[in-house]
Parts: sequence; structure tokens; C-alpha cells
Amino acid sequence: MAPIAVAIASTLPVAVQAQDSVEERLSALEAQLAEVEPKATGEEGFSFNTYARSGLLLNEDLKSAPGGPYLTPAGSVGGAVGRLGNEPDTYLEAILNYRQKADNGTKSLYRLMIADSTTSSNDWTANDGAVNVRQAYVEFSELAGFRGIVRNATIWAGKRFDRDNFDIHWLDSDFAFLAGTGAGIYDVQFASELSSNFSVYGRSFIDFPSDPDSSDGTSKTDNIILTANNYFGPVQLMVNGMTAADNDERIVAGNTDAADSGIHTMLAYHGDSFFGLSDGNFKVAVLHGSGLGAEVKNIGADGNLHEDAVSTRFGAYGTTYLGDHWRLAPAILAETSKDRYIKGDDYQWLTLNARFAHEIAANFEMQYEASWQTMDIDPRGYQGRSEVDGEYSRLTIAPTFKPQVGGFWNRPEIRVFASYSSWDDELDAYAVGDSLGEDSDFASDQWTFGAQMEVWF
Amino acid sequence: MAPIAVAIASTLPVAVQAQDSVEERLSALEAQLAEVEPKATGEEGFSFNTYARSGLLLNEDLKSAPGGPYLTPAGSVGGAVGRLGNEPDTYLEAILNYRQKADNGTKSLYRLMIADSTTSSNDWTANDGAVNVRQAYVEFSELAGFRGIVRNATIWAGKRFDRDNFDIHWLDSDFAFLAGTGAGIYDVQFASELSSNFSVYGRSFIDFPSDPDSSDGTSKTDNIILTANNYFGPVQLMVNGMTAADNDERIVAGNTDAADSGIHTMLAYHGDSFFGLSDGNFKVAVLHGSGLGAEVKNIGADGNLHEDAVSTRFGAYGTTYLGDHWRLAPAILAETSKDRYIKGDDYQWLTLNARFAHEIAANFEMQYEASWQTMDIDPRGYQGRSEVDGEYSRLTIAPTFKPQVGGFWNRPEIRVFASYSSWDDELDAYAVGDSLGEDSDFASDQWTFGAQMEVWF
Amino acid sequence: MAPIAVAIASTLPVAVQAQDSVEERLSALEAQLAEVEPKATGEEGFSFNTYARSGLLLNEDLKSAPGGPYLTPAGSVGGAVGRLGNEPDTYLEAILNYRQKADNGTKSLYRLMIADSTTSSNDWTANDGAVNVRQAYVEFSELAGFRGIVRNATIWAGKRFDRDNFDIHWLDSDFAFLAGTGAGIYDVQFASELSSNFSVYGRSFIDFPSDPDSSDGTSKTDNIILTANNYFGPVQLMVNGMTAADNDERIVAGNTDAADSGIHTMLAYHGDSFFGLSDGNFKVAVLHGSGLGAEVKNIGADGNLHEDAVSTRFGAYGTTYLGDHWRLAPAILAETSKDRYIKGDDYQWLTLNARFAHEIAANFEMQYEASWQTMDIDPRGYQGRSEVDGEYSRLTIAPTFKPQVGGFWNRPEIRVFASYSSWDDELDAYAVGDSLGEDSDFASDQWTFGAQMEVWF
Repeated sequence: MAPIAVAIASTLPVAVQAQDSVEERLSALEAQLAEVEPKATGEEGFSFNTYARSGLLLNEDLKSAPGGPYLTPAGSVGGAVGRLGNEPDTYLEAILNYRQKADNGTKSLYRLMIADSTTSSNDWTANDGAVNVRQAYVEFSELAGFRGIVRNATIWAGKRFDRDNFDIHWLDSDFAFLAGTGAGIYDVQFASELSSNFSVYGRSFIDFPSDPDSSDGTSKTDNIILTANNYFGPVQLMVNGMTAADNDERIVAGNTDAADSGIHTMLAYHGDSFFGLSDGNFKVAVLHGSGLGAEVKNIGADGNLHEDAVSTRFGAYGTTYLGDHWRLAPAILAETSKDRYIKGDDYQWLTLNARFAHEIAANFEMQYEASWQTMDIDPRGYQGRSEVDGEYSRLTIAPTFKPQVGGFWNRPEIRVFASYSSWDDELDAYAVGDSLGEDSDFASDQWTFGAQMEVWF
Repeated sequence: MAPIAVAIASTLPVAVQAQDSVEERLSALEAQLAEVEPKATGEEGFSFNTYARSGLLLNEDLKSAPGGPYLTPAGSVGGAVGRLGNEPDTYLEAILNYRQKADNGTKSLYRLMIADSTTSSNDWTANDGAVNVRQAYVEFSELAGFRGIVRNATIWAGKRFDRDNFDIHWLDSDFAFLAGTGAGIYDVQFASELSSNFSVYGRSFIDFPSDPDSSDGTSKTDNIILTANNYFGPVQLMVNGMTAADNDERIVAGNTDAADSGIHTMLAYHGDSFFGLSDGNFKVAVLHGSGLGAEVKNIGADGNLHEDAVSTRFGAYGTTYLGDHWRLAPAILAETSKDRYIKGDDYQWLTLNARFAHEIAANFEMQYEASWQTMDIDPRGYQGRSEVDGEYSRLTIAPTFKPQVGGFWNRPEIRVFASYSSWDDELDAYAVGDSLGEDSDFASDQWTFGAQMEVWF
Repeated sequence: MAPIAVAIASTLPVAVQAQDSVEERLSALEAQLAEVEPKATGEEGFSFNTYARSGLLLNEDLKSAPGGPYLTPAGSVGGAVGRLGNEPDTYLEAILNYRQKADNGTKSLYRLMIADSTTSSNDWTANDGAVNVRQAYVEFSELAGFRGIVRNATIWAGKRFDRDNFDIHWLDSDFAFLAGTGAGIYDVQFASELSSNFSVYGRSFIDFPSDPDSSDGTSKTDNIILTANNYFGPVQLMVNGMTAADNDERIVAGNTDAADSGIHTMLAYHGDSFFGLSDGNFKVAVLHGSGLGAEVKNIGADGNLHEDAVSTRFGAYGTTYLGDHWRLAPAILAETSKDRYIKGDDYQWLTLNARFAHEIAANFEMQYEASWQTMDIDPRGYQGRSEVDGEYSRLTIAPTFKPQVGGFWNRPEIRVFASYSSWDDELDAYAVGDSLGEDSDFASDQWTFGAQMEVWF
């Protein structure tokens, strides 16, 4: 035994020493750990979000080409065509968030969105930019004192885009876009599969006949929108009612009977497959509105609508992979609208769009977009516009770089692109100064090209 | 002894193994700790601060109602009434800070404030918003090389709100608001109970008679303000002198003798109880100014003042709890001003205001505000204004949600509110286009209501 | 042996206990370490950068003095003089960055720059400020799929200042400033000592003859600039070609032959010593341009240039320490330009500038700047300007505070300053409303003074 015991004895001082050292190191570690930053959870503090696009859109003469998804006559009433290779602007949203969590667990969010839009390529755009604040609101969630059907509710007030807006990305069009200043409550849970949101939004209609009593020379009225969004599983039923006192007294070009109230409804389905055919997702919606509700996308934002205006719109899109490397996203958007601004006017248009992407390498894919629109519009002279009936089509090819290919919603992207677009010459006559009729440089059967970035996070 | 020795021997390998493992784990921990972020002290790097409010203020016709604490005739010269349920705007300040600490210990701060103000409810306000930069300055503190009375001093330069501004929150009125472009030093310590701040601020007066030699078509002069703020414990004595070369040559409506210099003083007391009666705080101040100093709140900001203008203002507020769940914050603001813009004119007004809050649940309280103002104004036709003598009163009830009730300065809040306001009809005649006289929809004895958020952090 | 064995036995329980405690503490530490934030590398997430200056520049009457490095007649075509004590404005750039790293290692950066400029000293500048977006672009680097000569390349698209711009800080003048909207690739590595950058930039020229067909009332064309920057070690060769379709059809004051294309080249050397004489750095460049390239600094930004315009510019600066506490930074900038806007016009100017700094204490240094410019300009009546031939000189002394003295690029600084400037009276006659000729208060042989902050990070 002696050797062992000796061995023990001889190692002991070292062991004790190591023990001391361990103690010291543990204490040091514990002290250091008290001075480090807890892992960011995103639940508190500042964060930054963005949507932005910027680039050049040129014609064969190397001049800026008119463009944008809303460049056709139908675009004047919301008829978008495909956006790929069709955007001449720098548009950006800088979103500054600040989240706090109270001792009682209630969370709050303040969100500020500063936006800008310009078609100038210059770096100094003090005279032709449009920096403005689109959102500034506060939202409370997980309220400690809320019980029952509002237990998981969120409340908000301020200026905002409604939380439940959703879009057809490739047409740069929301199904319905509700925004303004107001207050509301989200996620009132009536049953396990039935929840509702209720809000009131204000919109301002300006350009009243100049009111000599007004302090700032312009007069305005408000369109007050009551909105309810109801979710039954994947089914969404939105109902909006709105009223704008005195709006019928506004001077509206050629319109002696502007609406002062409106109704708007949207029935939508949010699918978690590609129309049941394959993996992916789809969304489909039917919208209907009358009076001030007849602008079915920008809810309550158009004060020029006729009191008899009626619109019905259908929209759908889906996304899916075709094999391992090909993505497909088709979309459709169509509307019929009557007595919209002038009694007896008639707006009909239909857009079909499809974007394909071929994922080729770690940072590279080819994107293709085909867009076709047909329209038959009789504006009855509203804003000097002429009756048109015709078709517009557009084909774009866009070699695209991105940090990592894969998926439909992965940004940023840097693209170069070339587009061929063609339309019935008759469409040029719709309006003075609109994109198609702008000048002789921009005629049917033409090529445009350019480069652009798009980013969101 | 053998069994023990054997026991030791048999446990030893394990102990040694554990020791190894401890060593490894310690080393791993130490290595990991070298890769973690030190706790944020707020002493370095970026941070974000905000003041913002946004909401709807409507009349019984569901139209925007005129409003704001400065809506009465007295408001044109600073006579605010209570703000609860009385704000028709979206106003916000986004404050971006960047702090650095030099190796020698000197701290520096860069602060940028971007602000916006609009009464439009729309989300796109490029034409009716007002995005601008209100502050951009640098401040150094704990300067390594400073000794003696400036040992704890802070120096600054740029465009800013003076550090020592303080307000009556419920009237949206600073006691004195000093802001502009300049430079200065804070916290010069003459004795343990005596410290002083010294700054120079510039303000721009524009709208000179158009100067054909001017490069930008507008001409301007500067009001240069020398300010000293002296603190004797809770007592503050502020003294301002100012001079605006050539200001007497500006064309000012109906005023042939605009001041080109001014004096302004404020004596204030910062109390750490509710007027000595209970826990809470209070502030009280008397302000007096002449010439360009006769705008006693917005120091040096009004270039239209008459050379003989004299104003004296008194303000006070306090905060205290009445029992466990009721908060009270009364305030008073009053001014007398003579020869202000026209020799012989006379402005007298007094506002009493009190806000009560009843803390009811974790996230809910009821707020009440009563406001009364009396005014007797003889503007001698300045800017076409008429003589008025009358009273304005306002009562607001505001159910209020917040992340955690408690305290006077706890934000954000989401409120809904209803107000009843009443005033002497004579007040409508003060000025063309001001809030009370704006139109027949906005008459005395009326209800307004709405919803709003308010946040600061 | 027994005592030892006993000793061991008696210490064992403690040891085991300690062992347990160590285990617990290790486990606790390990658990805590899983909840801490990894050290910020700057490779991901939000960051904030800034350039800003703000202060007062006053004359002896305490009124704002005209100023700025471009205040002389030569300044109208880029002839800057020294900026110290010569800046009357608040100018700032708020830069918001967001960096991401993909799973495959590819890095992306989104950069947004919001800028403002005003000479108003007021804190509310909604009417006289200029908030706008100068940059919004995306940049990818370390692309996982890039090989060969583009292995280390960076690609970008959007609106930006070109990465390779560099300036003479003391004259507030870039050697060449390329900015606009476009796309490009940096760091194409042809050989170990040869790398190139290629980009296309668009610039907008507006103020066309009003086009009745234009949707927004203004018409514009684009100047499309192809740029290549080639680096051979410290040597940089930049070549730019540009074309602006229809620019010769723009109505340009007095110019019937505006250029519609241009060429621009710059040969530069980036030295890592003070002209080989001592430690420090230097940069020297020769620029030459014709047609639209004859504005040799702001590449492609001047649409008024004559088709025969030719300009050649030389610039150089260096920095070095003279002993331990004195810094010296001399600079030279000179240009000759002919047929610039009007056939037969002639612009010649030369600026010499030197800034000295004497580092005196931890937070304090004295700065001195001497500036001299000679010019001989015959504008042939362009924009009503008169022929002038004369000299301008300026001496500034600026006691300067900073967090830590040392080095040429260390900011922030807070300065007070006094300047004496003198010039030939003939220069006052150059243009109506320019700085020198503005009014009788601003005459030759005058003192100006003020205070200012300058910061970047």
C-alpha cells in the first residue's frame, strides 16, 4: 500500500493547488459573466427593418424609360402588370422599431417608418425626393391585465399600415391595403378557430374648394373607416364601412355626386399548398365595394368616387417549386368597376402574370417574367381621359445575383434585365402625359433594360 | 487503514478524470467568455430615443376637429390649455445618439433629431408632412484635461434644444424653450452649491424685404443670444441677452419699430415634494423679458416683437398621489404682455389645468383633465386680429391603456377620449382662420372625441 | 503513513464537496454562457455612421456671414478655398447600415444615407431644410460562388457615392466625386498588382423645355456614365465615358450647343509617406475631361457644359507631423477650363491651402489655416456673370477641443474661430447675389468668427 499512499501524498499538493486555481478561475468566470450582455432576444430594444429598391430603367436611347407596374391605362385604377424589369424609381422604407417589456410582462412596440420615392438618378434629391413618415404607432401585446377573449389580444394606436395587409408581390399590389391614422384591437379570440380584429382608421381628403376661413388655405375632410377582419382558420372575411362627412361638397373634376360613404368586403383564403397541387402556398381573394368602398385595394383612400360606384375584384397567386431548381409564381388580378367617377363609366381589366426562376449557382439565378393585361375602359371623359380597349404584354429576362439562392422571399437581389413590351397603340390615347402616351420615344414593341437592387429584412 | 487507502485509490482515477474534465470545461468557458459581448453600459455606441404622438381628433360629424393646446386666441402668444384629448396631429421626434469614449476617458455624444408634424391622417404625406432636422450637435463630458471649476464641465456645439429646458407636460409648454445653433459649456462649478452654464445661440429671422443682391432670394438676420443658467441648489436663475442686427429694418406687418435687442430672465424653483404638502414634485417659475426677450417661452425666436415690448409670465405645476391609485397634476400658466407687436397693445391670459388619473388595473387607468382659461387681448389690429375678452373651458375623460400603470411619466399610452369644450362666442372673432373661428362646425359647447397614442423613451 | 492516510481521509469529504460545488458552478456557468450575446463583430446587424457639421459663422455685426469653401467666383466652377472657420451651415449625413451573412458565407450590406443641409440657425427647418436620401444601395462581397478573377469581387446596385471617391478634406473637395444610380463590380483581380472596378451610373438632367406630354410637368434626360477604375499598386487610373441622349436639345441659358457626351480621365497616386520626405501620407491627381466630362470633379453631374468644353485639373495634399506636437497638411488645387459653357469662355484658378495644428493638451489644440486663391475667369456672360481677375486670401485661427488630440482624422471637434479674409474688390462683380458680392456688409478685408462642431464616425 505504501507506494500508493506515497503517490497520493505526492500528488496532493498539486491537487490542492489545482483546486485553488479552479476556485480562482471559477470566481473569475463568474465575475466576468456578470459583466456580459444577455443574448439579444429581439424582445427589447432597437431594431431596424427595410424595404428598398433602386436602379436604372432605360430605353434603347439610354434615356430613362417610363415604367412601373401601374403604367397602363388600367394602372390608373389599380390594374398592375408585372414589376420585374419595370421599375424606374428609388423607393425605400426605413423602419425603426423599439420594443419594451414591462415588469408585469406586457410588451410594447413603437414603430416609425420613414419613406422616400423618386425617379431622379441623382444623389441629391432635396427638390425631387419625397421623404415622409408613413407609420408612427404604438402596439401593446401580452397585456398582463387582459383576460377572456382578449387574453391574447394586441391593441394599437397611431399611424400605420394595417397588420393584416397582404400582397401579390410580383404585381406590387396588395390584395387590400388599409392604412391611415387610428386605433384598434387584434386577435380577439371568440373560439379556437375564430378570431377577429377591429379598428378605426381615418383618411384625409384634401383639395376642397378653398375655404376662406381655413387657417392653412386648404380644407379637408376625413374618411372614417370601421374595419373588422375575421379569421375562420384559413378563411378571412374582412368588412369595412366608411363615412366622409361633406365629401359630396368637394369639388371633384366632372363629378357632381361624390360619395360620402362606402361599404367594402373581402373574402380571402390563405392556402398552405400550391392550390392543393404541390408544396408551396397560395392566396385567393374576392373584393367588392360600393361608394367610397369602390376603390377596393386602397381602402377608403379615394375621395373622388361616385356615390353609385361599384367595383368587384378578384386576385390570386401561388408559389411552388418545379423540380429542385425551378420556382414558379403565377398570379391573376382582375376588376370590373362601374359608375366609378362619372355616372355611366365602365372599367374592366384583367392581368395574368407569371414569374419563373432558375436557380443555377450559389449566388446566381435566372429570372423570367411574363405579363399580359387586357382592358376595356370607358372613363366618360373623367380627368380628360379617353375610352380605350386593348392589350398590353411584357416579357422580362433578369440574370439575378443574391447572397444565397433558394425560396421566393429571399432578398437582397441585384439584377440586370431586359424587357420586351408591346401594346395596342390605342392605349396611348388614354390620358395626356401618362406613361404609355408620354412621348414618341416610348412606343409599342420596344425594349427596355437596366439594373436594380431590391432588399428587405 | 487499508480499506480507506484502497477506497482512495479506487476513487482517484475518477477524481483525476473529473479534474481533467474540470480543466477542460474551465478552459472552454474561458475561451467562450473571450468571445462574448460586454454588457451594454449605454456609454458607447448607438441608441435610439423618441417622443411621438399620433391619433384622431373628431367632432360629432366625424370630421377632424381643430385642436391643439394653442387653439385659443391666447394660444397665439403662448397661452396653452390642456392637451388631453386635444391633439389633432401626428408629431414625432426620432433621436439617434452615438456615444464614444476616448482612451483618456473623455466621453463624446453625437445627437441627431429628425422630427415630423402633420395633421393629415394619410400614410403618404410627402406634400403635407414636415420632416426636418431639429438637433445635430456634439457634446463632450468628463474631459481628461479639464481641471478646477470646469473639472466636471460639459461642452457642446451644433444645433440643439438647450439641456436645461423643462416643461409643463400637460399644457405642452416649456417654461422656457431655448434652441438654435451655437456652442456652450455646462456645469461650471463655482462652489459646491453653485454651478453655471454659459452658451451662445443663434436664431434666424427671415422674410426680410426681398434683397435683390441675395443669392437665394430671401434675406435673413440672426438673433444672437447669450445665455447663463445659474443653479443655487434647487433655485435656478437664467439670464439671457440678445441682439439682432438690422432687425428693426425688417418689414413686419404693421410694426415700424421691431426690436433689435432684448433681455430675458427666469427665476425658477425645482421642488422635490408636492409644494411641501406631500410626496411628489413641483416646479415654479417667473419669467420676464423686454424687447426681443418679450417672447418669454421661445427665447429669441420671435423677430416681430416691438422694441418696447414687455412680458411677464408665471408658471407652476406639481405632481402627487392622492391615496394609492389616484394621481393629481395641477398646473397654472399666466402672462401679461404690453406693447408686444404694436405700441399700446395688451395681452393678458391665465390658464388653470388639472389632470387626474385613476389607476384601475395592471394595464388600465382613467384619466381626467379640466382646463380653464381667461384672456383679455387687445392686439391693436396686429395681423388683422380683433380685440377679445372671454373664457375657454374644456373637460376631457380618457380611458387609457398602458403597459404598466403607475407614475406620471410612464409611457407609452393608448387612449380613447371625449371632451366637452365651451367658450365665449366673442373669441371666435379674434383672427381669420384660427381654430375657434375656423368654421361653423366648430362652435362653442361642443363635443370632440378620438383615440391617440403617446410614447417617449 | 497512517497520519497521511488519515489526513487524506479527513480532507476527502471536503474535497468531494468542493468537487460537487465546482460541478454545480461549472454547470451554472455553462448554462449562463448559452444565454449571452456573442461579441459584436460588425459583420452582422445594424450600425450607424455619420458625417455632420453645425455652427455659427458671424461677421462683426453679429449677423450671419456668407461663407463656405466655394464662396469665390472660382468656387462656381469648383475652386474651393480652405474650410476652417468658413462654414455657415448645418450639414449632416445619417448613415444606416445593415449587414447580413448567408449560410454559404456571402456577405451583404444595405446602406441608407439621409442627408440635410441648411443655413438656418433655427431648430425647426421644415421650410428651409433639405432632408433627402443620398444613398440607398446593396453590396455583396465574399460571394460563395465567385471564382477566378472575380473571386474577391464585390458587386452592387442602387444609389450611391462610388466607393473609390477620395477628397482633400481641408478644401471640402473630392478629387473626383462620382455618385448616382446604377450598378457595378469592384475588385476584379487581373493580376496580383492589378485590379479594376467597373460600374455604370445614371445622372438626371432636368429643366428641359416643359414637355406638354410629360406626366409630371418636368422633363429630364439621363447622363449614363461608364466608369473603370484601375489600380496598379499605388497608381490609380480612372476612365469615364458618358452619354446623355437629347441633352443638346435642353434649353441652357446662353448655350445653344450643350454637350451630349463626354470623356473623363484621372491619374492618381496614393502615397504612404509625406511626398517621400517624412512619415505621413499624400495623394496627387491629374484630371482631364471634355464635353460632359469637363466637370472633372462631379463626374457627369453638369448638363450645361458646352460640346467643346475642355478642363484639366491638378490636385495634391499631404499630411505629416513636424515634431511631436505640430501637424501640417498642405494642399493645392488648380484648374484650367475652356469653352466650358460658352464657346470662347475661359476659367483659370489655383488654390494653395495649409492647415497647421498644435497639440497642446489632452483635449485641446490650436488650429491654423492659411488659404490663397488666384483666378482669371472670362465667362462670356454665362448666367449674367462678369469677367474677373484677382486674388482671395484667408487666415483662420481656431482653438479646438476634442476628446483626444492626435492624428489628422480624429473627430469630433468643437472649435471656436476667427478669420481674416481679403480679396480684390473686382471679384465682387462676378455674379449677382454670390457670396462676395452679396451686400455691402460683406466686403474685403473683414473679420468673421464663430463656433462649430464637426464629427464623423
